[in-house]
Amino acid sequence: MKGFGIHTSLWTMEWTREAAERTVAQAKKYPLDFIEIALLDPPMVDAVHSRKLLEAAELPAVCSLGLPEDSWASVRPDAAIDFLKVAIDKTADIGALALSYGGIGERTGLPPTEPEKDNIVRVLQAAAKHAKSRNIEIGIEPVNRYENHIINTGWQAVEIIERIGAENIFIHLDTYHMNIEEKGVANGILDTREHLKYIHLSESDRGVPGAGTCDWNEIFASLAAIKFNGGLAMESFINMLRSGVRLQKVPKRS
Amino acid sequence: MKGFGIHTSLWTMEWTREAAERTVAQAKKYPLDFIEIALLDPPMVDAVHSRKLLEAAELPAVCSLGLPEDSWASVRPDAAIDFLKVAIDKTADIGALALSYGGIGERTGLPPTEPEKDNIVRVLQAAAKHAKSRNIEIGIEPVNRYENHIINTGWQAVEIIERIGAENIFIHLDTYHMNIEEKGVANGILDTREHLKYIHLSESDRGVPGAGTCDWNEIFASLAAIKFNGGLAMESFINMLRSGVRLQKVPKRS
Amino acid sequence: MKGFGIHTSLWTMEWTREAAERTVAQAKKYPLDFIEIALLDPPMVDAVHSRKLLEAAELPAVCSLGLPEDSWASVRPDAAIDFLKVAIDKTADIGALALSYGGIGERTGLPPTEPEKDNIVRVLQAAAKHAKSRNIEIGIEPVNRYENHIINTGWQAVEIIERIGAENIFIHLDTYHMNIEEKGVANGILDTREHLKYIHLSESDRGVPGAGTCDWNEIFASLAAIKFNGGLAMESFINMLRSGVRLQKVPKRS
Amino acid sequence: MKGFGIHTSLWTMEWTREAAERTVAQAKKYPLDFIEIALLDPPMVDAVHSRKLLEAAELPAVCSLGLPEDSWASVRPDAAIDFLKVAIDKTADIGALALSYGGIGERTGLPPTEPEKDNIVRVLQAAAKHAKSRNIEIGIEPVNRYENHIINTGWQAVEIIERIGAENIFIHLDTYHMNIEEKGVANGILDTREHLKYIHLSESDRGVPGAGTCDWNEIFASLAAIKFNGGLAMESFINMLRSGVRLQKVPKRS
Repeated sequence: MKGFGIHTSLWTMEWTREAAERTVAQAKKYPLDFIEIALLDPPMVDAVHSRKLLEAAELPAVCSLGLPEDSWASVRPDAAIDFLKVAIDKTADIGALALSYGGIGERTGLPPTEPEKDNIVRVLQAAAKHAKSRNIEIGIEPVNRYENHIINTGWQAVEIIERIGAENIFIHLDTYHMNIEEKGVANGILDTREHLKYIHLSESDRGVPGAGTCDWNEIFASLAAIKFNGGLAMESFINMLRSGVRLQKVPKRS
Repeated sequence: MKGFGIHTSLWTMEWTREAAERTVAQAKKYPLDFIEIALLDPPMVDAVHSRKLLEAAELPAVCSLGLPEDSWASVRPDAAIDFLKVAIDKTADIGALALSYGGIGERTGLPPTEPEKDNIVRVLQAAAKHAKSRNIEIGIEPVNRYENHIINTGWQAVEIIERIGAENIFIHLDTYHMNIEEKGVANGILDTREHLKYIHLSESDRGVPGAGTCDWNEIFASLAAIKFNGGLAMESFINMLRSGVRLQKVPKRS
Repeated sequence: MKGFGIHTSLWTMEWTREAAERTVAQAKKYPLDFIEIALLDPPMVDAVHSRKLLEAAELPAVCSLGLPEDSWASVRPDAAIDFLKVAIDKTADIGALALSYGGIGERTGLPPTEPEKDNIVRVLQAAAKHAKSRNIEIGIEPVNRYENHIINTGWQAVEIIERIGAENIFIHLDTYHMNIEEKGVANGILDTREHLKYIHLSESDRGVPGAGTCDWNEIFASLAAIKFNGGLAMESFINMLRSGVRLQKVPKRS
Repeated sequence: MKGFGIHTSLWTMEWTREAAERTVAQAKKYPLDFIEIALLDPPMVDAVHSRKLLEAAELPAVCSLGLPEDSWASVRPDAAIDFLKVAIDKTADIGALALSYGGIGERTGLPPTEPEKDNIVRVLQAAAKHAKSRNIEIGIEPVNRYENHIINTGWQAVEIIERIGAENIFIHLDTYHMNIEEKGVANGILDTREHLKYIHLSESDRGVPGAGTCDWNEIFASLAAIKFNGGLAMESFINMLRSGVRLQKVPKRS
């Protein structure tokens, strides 16, 4: 998780054998240090196939996910632990270095509660312990208020990570979410500096970096100033359908 | 709708008699040119009471709303027209000047379709016609992708408004949404200049304007440059519960 | 003076026949709408040669200058008028469309005085009158405090231009100077909008536009918002020796 | 040199007994951690008087200066050393902690040469040595191209300071100059971080900080990110007449 990578959402929203082959072939056209694979449905990933592909391409990988509604960490901690253990094993099996949890789609529609935070701490402690046995790291990604109601800012992630107290857990920022949630884009970087190992470089509208409202001068100046030496991953996409955001049906009139 | 106003979400999320009295009393402490009232539940507003309050305070008002799920303009146009007619009558009855439609909470989870746009055009044509008979104006507010899947940018609002073709309909921007959806905050202002009469000044995190990531220099320079002379309303709040976003229950594990 | 041009300082600091030939050949490699020629020493320009070159290249031109110390408009108005008449004739003779006066190097080291402003008004009135007879326009360029002590901001140029009262005189801004002198880069554009026909796009350190501290989003948004349709000229150089800034000798110790 | 101070140019351009008394009285009205005194004419300062004033006010001080033309460090190194020794003694005698050299007004009008840089290194080595004997520190302030032709950027100051090799010498930045000379305001901070102990917070037009073109978010984010813990001094003035910039007479026509 050093250098410059790309989130595979640029090429695919799923990780079937066919999608993996096509994506790795595309990624190899660029001088990337790593790719980030969204583990939307961990059990369906063919780990042996992915590991061979990545090894042949000499392409390091990291994985990321949100949890489906029946396994939300905040309210269904036991299910979340089960889900994450499978995802951690899959991450390790494909030879990836880390798994980031973003809480995408995890919203009760109510203000966050202390028991919800306790649940998240417990889930991530268990995840970190299992991840350690598989020699991978766990990331926490604050996401915006529409995606999650508990961890929206870097500072909130610091509070959680300090309660977890594991060595193999880090913070993963995303400039798209920071542009909405932080008091200034630099604030998230300053607040998390002791735990920050990974950042999504994503424009304010998820479009082409540079053509939006993110203040990239402030972002890169702050990263340079804290001597950031982790992974920088470009993330850009349209219309992702995520594991945590089940499609709503067009509502029937009652 | 000229000068500087405040969205009443600063003080209240509902518009009961008690809330209206408290809010107008608060608003009168400041040299405001108008207030904006969220008509979350139009039928329950006591129009006679509100009109008296506002007249006594010599405080002009505008109203705004999103539609509940059973009356979404995009998919339930007849219900939307019925809902909007009631809201327009209530707006006129309390003596307000305009009613803005923001499509807050109106998302199918699927990409927008042409029939959905046709429905919105039809609904707003009917709304504009009824509004004309009551001598008020109708606003369209583009909101971000998490709130609406059809009108997110100023340009998309222009396309709709030009299809509607009514004289008493205008565009209402919001800097909070623009910070997420526009290629630059000025772009929304430039794209809508022929129709722009109203703007929410709202920080990137809905907090105190000036303490966030919105580029206010670019916003105010562009507004000055187009000789904007409409209404500027500060909007700032925490945890609003809107008509279009019914509270979800904490999910049961299946 | 419409579209995109380049100040010839990018290639040359003088305008000899050789330099003119080399520069026009370079300029023709790009799809430019015009070039800007610095008339540092008007009498030495071979106008017949330049006109033929520019006509053969189908390349429109504008000229610009500062005045040498013995002809400063602020304190030597008669000499300045004589100097400008020669420069105007040369501008017309080479077929250029306008001549801009920037007051580069014109500093007494004392605060500006009313008689100095009166002198500038008188000089530019005479220049505008002579320019009209030759069918060219006169520009006024505000420059920073180190270059001139009288016209540093757009607003100061407006005050002068309104006193002059001629139809063929316009304001010429420069983003490099605006970055130092204006309260915001947009302010210069907003303040001069009724008179603005030309702008130098020049980075904060006179280097490559985009790699400095100028806020280009605010600049281009404001230009678009006022519907600017004049000339945009890139100016970028190192170590220009100007007519108004005679080289100082290394000082002798007294 | 920690915390927040103000450059006394806010109140006075000279440091007579009367000016010192008036200025210290003004400064005491604010919760300042220190003041910065411009030593424009070191021999005329009444050090005993200033020391008593500052001690009575419990107000720490730092001093700064440019060199007069007959003592420019770049071309008159021996005279510069003599001048600086007097200034260092005066700085120590009034009880100030440091003396900053800004090279204000020191311009040959020609490109910088290696012998000029060698001279500056030799002068500042001698100054640092003498300063050490008086237990004060020496600062180097990069200033803009109109003030000095040798040290304009933070990086250029680093090159000089590393050649000097003394322990009691530091870099002193100024946001006003950085806005003109650095590729981004953060760049100066990043480039000098190992030597940076002091910074002038000065707006782009030397006016009120916040009402200009300096990007303060980027400045403060970078300072926080490098864990800057030196002195921050507000500098704001109009029309300073400095020791290195002798007033020019209004030129006679030749």
